[in-house]
Amino acid sequence: MRENLLLEEAQEVLLNQARPLGEAMVPLTEAWGRVISRDIRAGANIPPFNKSPLDGYALRASDTKKASPSNPVRLKVREVVRAGFMPEQEVIPGTAIKVMTGAPLPAGADVVIKYEDVKEGKHGIEVYQPLKAGDNIILVGDDITQGELVSVRGSLVNPALAGLLASLGLSEIPVFFPIRAAIVSTGDELILPFEPLTRGKIYNSSLYTLAARCRELGVLPAVLGNVSDKAEAVAGCLQQGLDTADIVISTGGVSVGDYDVVRNALLELGTEIIFWKIRMKPGSPLIAARKDNKIIIGLSGNPAAAMVSFDLVAVPVLKKMMGQDQLLPRKIKAIFLDRFDKPSPERRFLRAQLHRRNGMDFVRLTGGQGNGVLKSLVACNVLIDVPAGSGPLKTGQQVNAYITGNINESYQDDLRSSLMRIAY
Amino acid sequence: MRENLLLEEAQEVLLNQARPLGEAMVPLTEAWGRVISRDIRAGANIPPFNKSPLDGYALRASDTKKASPSNPVRLKVREVVRAGFMPEQEVIPGTAIKVMTGAPLPAGADVVIKYEDVKEGKHGIEVYQPLKAGDNIILVGDDITQGELVSVRGSLVNPALAGLLASLGLSEIPVFFPIRAAIVSTGDELILPFEPLTRGKIYNSSLYTLAARCRELGVLPAVLGNVSDKAEAVAGCLQQGLDTADIVISTGGVSVGDYDVVRNALLELGTEIIFWKIRMKPGSPLIAARKDNKIIIGLSGNPAAAMVSFDLVAVPVLKKMMGQDQLLPRKIKAIFLDRFDKPSPERRFLRAQLHRRNGMDFVRLTGGQGNGVLKSLVACNVLIDVPAGSGPLKTGQQVNAYITGNINESYQDDLRSSLMRIAY
Repeated sequence: MRENLLLEEAQEVLLNQARPLGEAMVPLTEAWGRVISRDIRAGANIPPFNKSPLDGYALRASDTKKASPSNPVRLKVREVVRAGFMPEQEVIPGTAIKVMTGAPLPAGADVVIKYEDVKEGKHGIEVYQPLKAGDNIILVGDDITQGELVSVRGSLVNPALAGLLASLGLSEIPVFFPIRAAIVSTGDELILPFEPLTRGKIYNSSLYTLAARCRELGVLPAVLGNVSDKAEAVAGCLQQGLDTADIVISTGGVSVGDYDVVRNALLELGTEIIFWKIRMKPGSPLIAARKDNKIIIGLSGNPAAAMVSFDLVAVPVLKKMMGQDQLLPRKIKAIFLDRFDKPSPERRFLRAQLHRRNGMDFVRLTGGQGNGVLKSLVACNVLIDVPAGSGPLKTGQQVNAYITGNINESYQDDLRSSLMRIAY
Repeated sequence: MRENLLLEEAQEVLLNQARPLGEAMVPLTEAWGRVISRDIRAGANIPPFNKSPLDGYALRASDTKKASPSNPVRLKVREVVRAGFMPEQEVIPGTAIKVMTGAPLPAGADVVIKYEDVKEGKHGIEVYQPLKAGDNIILVGDDITQGELVSVRGSLVNPALAGLLASLGLSEIPVFFPIRAAIVSTGDELILPFEPLTRGKIYNSSLYTLAARCRELGVLPAVLGNVSDKAEAVAGCLQQGLDTADIVISTGGVSVGDYDVVRNALLELGTEIIFWKIRMKPGSPLIAARKDNKIIIGLSGNPAAAMVSFDLVAVPVLKKMMGQDQLLPRKIKAIFLDRFDKPSPERRFLRAQLHRRNGMDFVRLTGGQGNGVLKSLVACNVLIDVPAGSGPLKTGQQVNAYITGNINESYQDDLRSSLMRIAY
């Protein structure tokens, strides 16, 4: 068993153990949020035929060479073609075929003119301008060419990809198996939100935080509940997790004290302990083990520490098991717009929010940084990475941070003067 | 009926019509992804008592004043307190109480020293340094103070908020009703992915794109399917949407041609048509109507146009109906790292991807910009807003864009030389 790893070592060791579970074909309607398990090539052109992008008339550009407002060209309309139907006629010189948006381009036509740009008469239309061959035609294969690679293994199916796969006529999609994570909290002090609060007890939040985080990631949470601080009880519960889920996440019982029992439970279960403790704060007392090719990650019992280390250590593992190809959180540089007066003898992650203003990235702390403080995680979307041996952080200094939440709301084009004052 | 609105007018008109449906209490386990319907104040302090953040000994700082490595202070250990249990004794001068992580601080103690920093003997411990009162104690209310506002109406329940609400012992959460959006596509040319492709037909993608986009937003999609281009059939289908959902989204049948039938269907149903057409490309032929306080939005039948106008026009409406307080997409400025040679007589939205490099925002087109091209939406996370009357866009020019997708993956700290070459 290794001890006191760097975060990056811990990530690497665990990612080396993690594997996607397998793959299956699922109905397209179930594919959103899943991960493509095989490269997908287009079996056909999209669109499958040349078509009109608008309501208008398909004709021959050569017929309009001499057209002008004072000398319009008159064309006989041979047919009306709606989307979904094939033209029965051909466009021969001196004629046009009316086409609706999406209708196939009739043979013989090489241009479409907008409905609004012609004058319609009883027997035909008048065109007032010379047209350029190829205008207003969507060519066969304009969106997708037959054989083209449309999605690669490891891609998350987003709404546009779901539509793209539909447009190829794919009703079943190869995706990786979904994964199930068992979640259990250890601690005699823990009660559930519907229980009355008695002296010395606290409401467990980590089960809810981690279950919601799993749902957000597309992982099915199997919430096993709270278990007492006894190695036997914990072992039973972890084994239940191993039996019913693909990975087990626990909180609590991983630090150095007498009653810290997860390690004993893991030994009792005959798991191979991979490492214990990561050189970072919060979340240092993290234990990782393996049994029957399933990973067990024991997080700190402190709610904020549990969530921070979940995001940095467990999330990449879950993503790899889901088959995703983007595993580690994105790293950014930003300007620290706050104060943090404590030195950091150990590497420290601070809960912060990205503020993008006037083309620059700023980060501000989202509140107290204590291990138990969950409040500051609600608005947190980045974790500032403070290197071991750092002194206090000063306003205006550059910091590194990892993106762990949605940063879309961090963009604001209204500049707040207070921020500007500090920044410049 | 108004015609040819600015996008911003269309958004405003529709947002003025949209309302949240109502509110309900739901179990905390169901709250993730929902929107808080009432401000929530803490009913208690968190933590509810002073506690130890680590495994150690609770003692009186004044006892350690003269402690040093050569002259340790010896304290008798009176009791061991585990998390979840109350101390039975008090710390009196000359004594200490062993406390586990999370255990309540015993009366009389004003500091906790780490387990590793003392020497444990048979009857007591030795302390080698003077301690400062208050160190290593998590004070009652450290995370949340009783009465504090913990969440406001309109907040989306994210994982940390779910945990925070759990930590307050809230097992039921006030949230807005979920909303259901009926989705229907009109068009005789449309077939579903499991049908064989016949001449003149195309696979419908919009049902799948829009249903997935709804799921992503937390809206329940009710997919009604494809309906033929006949006003009666469309009217029947829209009425079914009105009967079974809270908002109806259709695609197709909204442009100027003969067979464009959604408007006729809306009139047949006796709906009030709010506006028709928006001055933008793609997605211009959009129709909005209302019946029985329900909104109907008819989008273009072109797959890309449908999705772009869904994101810009329908998504803010859906978010308001869900009770959210952040409705419009965020606007950013970025440097255009591509070429777009067409002029834009009309306002135009280009599908692009944000690339954040070296502290700057760049945008690149994600592919073809034709109305039917869905491929370029797969990697699109911003829409470049090209003002009406613009000429071709040049590499390096500044553009405005709206964030419509996840931009987390747009951050890269590895700089690609090709990008840098163009940028500088």
